[in-house]
Amino acid sequence: CDDAGGAVADADMVVLAVPVGAMAAAFEAAAPVLKAGAIVTDVGSVKGAVIEALRARVPAHALLIPGHPVAGTEHSGPDAGFATLFKGRWHILTPLPDPRPEYAQAVDKLEAFWRALGADVERMDPARHDVVLAVTSHLPHLIAFNIVAMAEDLESVTESEVVKFSASGFRDFTRIAASDPTMWRDVFLNNREAVLEVLGRFSEDLAALQRAIRWGEGDTLYDLFDRARRMRREVIEAGQDTAEPNWGREN
Amino acid sequence: CDDAGGAVADADMVVLAVPVGAMAAAFEAAAPVLKAGAIVTDVGSVKGAVIEALRARVPAHALLIPGHPVAGTEHSGPDAGFATLFKGRWHILTPLPDPRPEYAQAVDKLEAFWRALGADVERMDPARHDVVLAVTSHLPHLIAFNIVAMAEDLESVTESEVVKFSASGFRDFTRIAASDPTMWRDVFLNNREAVLEVLGRFSEDLAALQRAIRWGEGDTLYDLFDRARRMRREVIEAGQDTAEPNWGREN
Repeated sequence: CDDAGGAVADADMVVLAVPVGAMAAAFEAAAPVLKAGAIVTDVGSVKGAVIEALRARVPAHALLIPGHPVAGTEHSGPDAGFATLFKGRWHILTPLPDPRPEYAQAVDKLEAFWRALGADVERMDPARHDVVLAVTSHLPHLIAFNIVAMAEDLESVTESEVVKFSASGFRDFTRIAASDPTMWRDVFLNNREAVLEVLGRFSEDLAALQRAIRWGEGDTLYDLFDRARRMRREVIEAGQDTAEPNWGREN
Repeated sequence: CDDAGGAVADADMVVLAVPVGAMAAAFEAAAPVLKAGAIVTDVGSVKGAVIEALRARVPAHALLIPGHPVAGTEHSGPDAGFATLFKGRWHILTPLPDPRPEYAQAVDKLEAFWRALGADVERMDPARHDVVLAVTSHLPHLIAFNIVAMAEDLESVTESEVVKFSASGFRDFTRIAASDPTMWRDVFLNNREAVLEVLGRFSEDLAALQRAIRWGEGDTLYDLFDRARRMRREVIEAGQDTAEPNWGREN
């Protein structure tokens, strides 16, 4: 937009907070007017594709340091923010192999910025970020979208029955599946390889579970469920279990 | 247990609250001492198999009215109860085709009992119950167990990375996957047909999504995600979205 250029010319830092597929376009207005030493960062859920899109566009006198706050709710946009959004959550920085001393200083500065917002900061290789997030975020969302859309399509069960009895497990999936469709389309288009790999693994394991149910293999089911249960305790111990403060405030 | 017989002999109602596969055994102690007109009900998540297990064991002078409260958390056992557990939740009754007038009266009485606990009550055919719950509860749990166990098995991503960055979606699955393994083993062994059918549908749809990601079909992804999003609103409007009051109280 036209206003962006003016504001950006004085900025010490530009944070791109748009869907992954819109990063390059959003950056177009900012790029020509960035001042020397300005930090360019983002909050996209995919890092490899964002780096590919931005790297060639960032002027040599600015410093590109991609990032991803592992925080948020199913809501998007400025109104979805709240004061404690980043508190106790991880922010991942994926710095580039830039040898300039001012680049290293800028990474420290950006880390301090996110810590000041309450986040813990982890530095990570972009490719590793994309694999880890494929497991912890992208696949869970894909599955949630899939089960909710499937339930809507069923002929054997009505939509109102699904909604009525959703407190038995389904409800939690609808929350995740309420996330912004543009944002998630872009994630899957831009983290294709990592998502397809972990999705293949998920489907393979699900087929084994299906077989265990068909053949009545109770011990196989019990052992797998018991193993899954243990990870919950670790999530709680890591302090990542609490509901977001604005859960349930939808209207 | 030995004590059960004594207490049950005076009981107006016996509520079997054990895993689906343990219903018959739990009822053995109660059956011989039930007084005339006593109501026998249960809270199992599968109705067809429970009816099959109990029907022949309930004496003719007692009244079997199977039921299922669609409420609860990932916690099990007496300590997992709390005062508002059933408030605003649905309780499903699946009465048998028993022509005795006292049977119809007992169903009304049992309905009043659950309403007094704060629940809304729905009467349903047992087979339909099992299909609806396969969609709203059994499949979501199966998928959650599967993704959490899969994440634990991955070589490409460590368990501590999964836990650390679980706030991005994975966390919600760990909560569901923390449910009692015995209870869930029994659900899948006893609602096999309905679960396999809906699971087949889920896998089919997931394969289509996988193909859309592989071929970069953004519109297909967007349309499906957008559709899934709408159901969230219906869940909220139906008042089934609020978190259980004891979420996050784990220690």
